[in-house]
Amino acid sequence: MLHINDNYLKLQASYLFADIAHRISVFQQKHPERELIRMGIGDVTNPLPQACITAFHKAVDEMGAAATFRGYGPEQGYEFLRQAIAEHDFQSRGADIDAGEIFISDGAKCDTGNIQELFAQGARIAVPDPVYPVYVDTNVMAGRTGVWAQGRYQGLIYLDCTAANGYVPELPAEKADLIYLCFPNNPTGATVSREQLGLWVDYAHKHQALILFDAAYEAFIRDERLPHTIYEIPGAREVAIEFRSFSKSAGFTGTRCAYTVVPRDCRAWDAAGREQSLHGLWNRRHSTKFNGVSYPVQRAAEAVYSREGQAQCRALIDGYLENARLIGEALDELGYQHVGGSNSPYIWVACGRDSWEFFDLLLTHAGVVCTPGAGFGRCGEGYVRLSAFNSGENVQKAMERLAGAARMLKA
Amino acid sequence: MLHINDNYLKLQASYLFADIAHRISVFQQKHPERELIRMGIGDVTNPLPQACITAFHKAVDEMGAAATFRGYGPEQGYEFLRQAIAEHDFQSRGADIDAGEIFISDGAKCDTGNIQELFAQGARIAVPDPVYPVYVDTNVMAGRTGVWAQGRYQGLIYLDCTAANGYVPELPAEKADLIYLCFPNNPTGATVSREQLGLWVDYAHKHQALILFDAAYEAFIRDERLPHTIYEIPGAREVAIEFRSFSKSAGFTGTRCAYTVVPRDCRAWDAAGREQSLHGLWNRRHSTKFNGVSYPVQRAAEAVYSREGQAQCRALIDGYLENARLIGEALDELGYQHVGGSNSPYIWVACGRDSWEFFDLLLTHAGVVCTPGAGFGRCGEGYVRLSAFNSGENVQKAMERLAGAARMLKA
Repeated sequence: MLHINDNYLKLQASYLFADIAHRISVFQQKHPERELIRMGIGDVTNPLPQACITAFHKAVDEMGAAATFRGYGPEQGYEFLRQAIAEHDFQSRGADIDAGEIFISDGAKCDTGNIQELFAQGARIAVPDPVYPVYVDTNVMAGRTGVWAQGRYQGLIYLDCTAANGYVPELPAEKADLIYLCFPNNPTGATVSREQLGLWVDYAHKHQALILFDAAYEAFIRDERLPHTIYEIPGAREVAIEFRSFSKSAGFTGTRCAYTVVPRDCRAWDAAGREQSLHGLWNRRHSTKFNGVSYPVQRAAEAVYSREGQAQCRALIDGYLENARLIGEALDELGYQHVGGSNSPYIWVACGRDSWEFFDLLLTHAGVVCTPGAGFGRCGEGYVRLSAFNSGENVQKAMERLAGAARMLKA
Repeated sequence: MLHINDNYLKLQASYLFADIAHRISVFQQKHPERELIRMGIGDVTNPLPQACITAFHKAVDEMGAAATFRGYGPEQGYEFLRQAIAEHDFQSRGADIDAGEIFISDGAKCDTGNIQELFAQGARIAVPDPVYPVYVDTNVMAGRTGVWAQGRYQGLIYLDCTAANGYVPELPAEKADLIYLCFPNNPTGATVSREQLGLWVDYAHKHQALILFDAAYEAFIRDERLPHTIYEIPGAREVAIEFRSFSKSAGFTGTRCAYTVVPRDCRAWDAAGREQSLHGLWNRRHSTKFNGVSYPVQRAAEAVYSREGQAQCRALIDGYLENARLIGEALDELGYQHVGGSNSPYIWVACGRDSWEFFDLLLTHAGVVCTPGAGFGRCGEGYVRLSAFNSGENVQKAMERLAGAARMLKA
C-alpha cells in the first residue's frame, strides 16, 4: 500500500494568499458593482523595463532560427547572466562573490523552498515571526516540525519581531542550526544594519549554523548606511546563502527569474563530523532536479544590468517608493503607527484590532484589500501589511477611501 | 552544528551527462582540429515552430505595456494552456482528463524529480533498468535507498529491460508501491502496447500502488495501435500520474515548459489508512514551492495547439524520425542489433562490448558522441544510445564515419 508523506497533513488548511483570494471572491459575488483596490499580495503592476523587452524579443528571434537556436542551457544559468550579477550586485559593493557561486533559477520562492533539502532531518530551524509562509511550510512538509498548536508549529524556534525590537529579531537562547532572515523584510518592511547582521554572522560561526538570507527586496534600499547583501559582512561567506529575485527589482513576477548565491566557503557537516561544501550539494540538487531558466528570460534579466536597464529599474522602484511615502503620510494623518516603506515596498500597520477583522472591515467599507498580519505568524496579530505595488492614482484613491472609512475601522 | 542530508553522499560521483561532457572536453583539448557530431544527449537542434515564435513575441509585447502586463499567474498554469492541453492531448483521444487536472511546470525533469516528495519515506520504489537517472537519484537524495553496491542502489526494486522481454519490464515478484515507467522509452526507444500497460494498471489496483508514467516522447508515436497516454487504459485515473513535456514535441528544451497530469481520482493512504487525494497534495506542493511558468512561455506553448503549430510540430518530428530511420538502416548494414527509432528519437544499439569503451572508440575513431548504456543502469551495459536529434546532414555524415570506423569498433 502506497503511503503519503504524512507531514503534509500537518499543514494548515490553505496558503494565506489563497485564503485572501477566496474572501475577495465571495465579496465580489455579493457586490459586483464595487471596484476594489488591491494592496494585499506583493505583486508588481508596472510593465517590464523597455531594455528587458528589447532583449527578450531579440532572444525569441534567436530561438526561431537554426543558426542561433539554443537547446538545453547550463542548469546553473548562462555565464553571461551569472557574470553580470556577480559584477553589478556584489563585486561593485566590495562583496567577494564570483559568477560560479551564482545559481540562476525561476524564483526565490522555489529556491527558499528547496534549499532545506540539503540539510538533515534533525536540523533545528529558526524562523522570524511574522514571516513569509514558504520558509515554515516547506520545513513542515519535510518533517522538521511537530504539529500545529496555538498558532505555531511545535519544534520550530520562533524569533519574535515586534515593535520592542524594531522588528529585527534578537539572537535566540536555544541553539539554532538554520536561520531564515529576510531584509528588507516581508512583511514588516523593516531593515537591518551592518552591526545587527554582524551579530548573526558571529552567531552562525560560533554555533556552526547557517543563515538563509532572503534579500528579494534589496533593490528598495535607499539608505546608504544599510547593507545590500549579507556578503558585505566579514565572515559571511562561510555561513550564509543569499536569495535574490528579479521579481520586485525589475517586475519579473510573471516572467520568472531569480538567483541564489552559495559561496564555495559555505559549509555544514556530515554525520561523521566531516565538513561538506554546500556549493557542491546545491550544484548537485540544481543539476538533478532542475533544467535551467528559459533562455529568452535569462537574456531579459541580463538587460537589467545594461545602462538603460539600470535607469529604468531605478525609475520603476522610485515610483513604488513614492507610493509607499504617500501611504505612510496618510497613515500618519489618521494616527496609525506603522513601519517600513522607506527602504521597502511594504508598510506594516498596527491596525488596533484583530487583523482578519480589520481586513474584512477595510474590504467592506473602503473596497481596499490588505494582508492580515496574523497570516504571517502569531506576532503579526494586530497588524496588516499594505503593499506599495500599484499605480500612484490607485494609491491616492485607496488612501482617500481609508480616510473616509476611518470611523468604521477603529476598534 | 548544522548537519547535511547524508543521503547526498550515497550518490554516485557525477551525473551521467556531466561525465560525458567532461570526456568530450578532454578529447577536444587534445584534438582541437576534430569536428564532433553529437548524438549523445537528447537535445533538439531545430528552431521553435514559427507559430510559437509569433505567440512568444506577442506575449513579450504584452509584458511591455501597462494595460496588458501580467504579474504572478496561477501557480498551476494559465487556464488557456491547461484547457488546450486537456482537449488536444487527452479528450480528443477519449481520455477523460480535464483542465483542472493539469499542472503546468518548467520541466518534466523537475516534476519527475519532485513528485516523490508526496510519498512516505518507506515507499517501495520500482524503477526500470536501464533508466533515466533522475528517477533514481531523487529517491536516493530523499533517503529511500541504501548504499550503492555492484552497480545498483540497495533497497530499490529494479525492473530489468532486456532483449528477452522486448525492453518492456515484467511485473515484479515483490510488492512495489511506486512504479516509474517511461514509454516511448528513454533510453531504449521501446514502446508499450495497450495490453502491456493494462497489466501494470491492474497491478497498481491490486497492490494499492501508483504508476509514475513519463510520456515525454509521446509525440514520436506513429503506430496507431500504441497508446499515447496511460489514461487510454481503463482504471488508470485512480493509479497513474503522467508527465509530459514540450521539450521534444516542440523543441522547448531551452524554452522550458512541461506539464503533469494528476487526476482527481488518484489516491494513496495516510498512516491511519485513510485514502488521500494526490491531486490535493500535488496542488499544495506546487503552490507552496513553485510560482508558475513564465507567461510568454505559456503563450508559446499554447501555440503548439493551433492549426499551424500542430502542422509545424509534426514536420519537426517527422524530420527527427527520418533521421532515426537512416540511423537504423546504417546499423543494419553494419550488422548491429538495435531497437527503437520508429516511434521514438532514440536508437538502442547492442555495441558488442563494454559501453564506455565503445563510447571512447567511437569518439576517437569516428568523432561521434553517443551515450554509453551503462550510464543508465546495469542492464545498459553492452549498449549505447544514439539520438536522432540532429540535422539530416550530420546524421548522414555520422553514419558514414561509423561505417569508416567499423573495423576499429568491433570487439
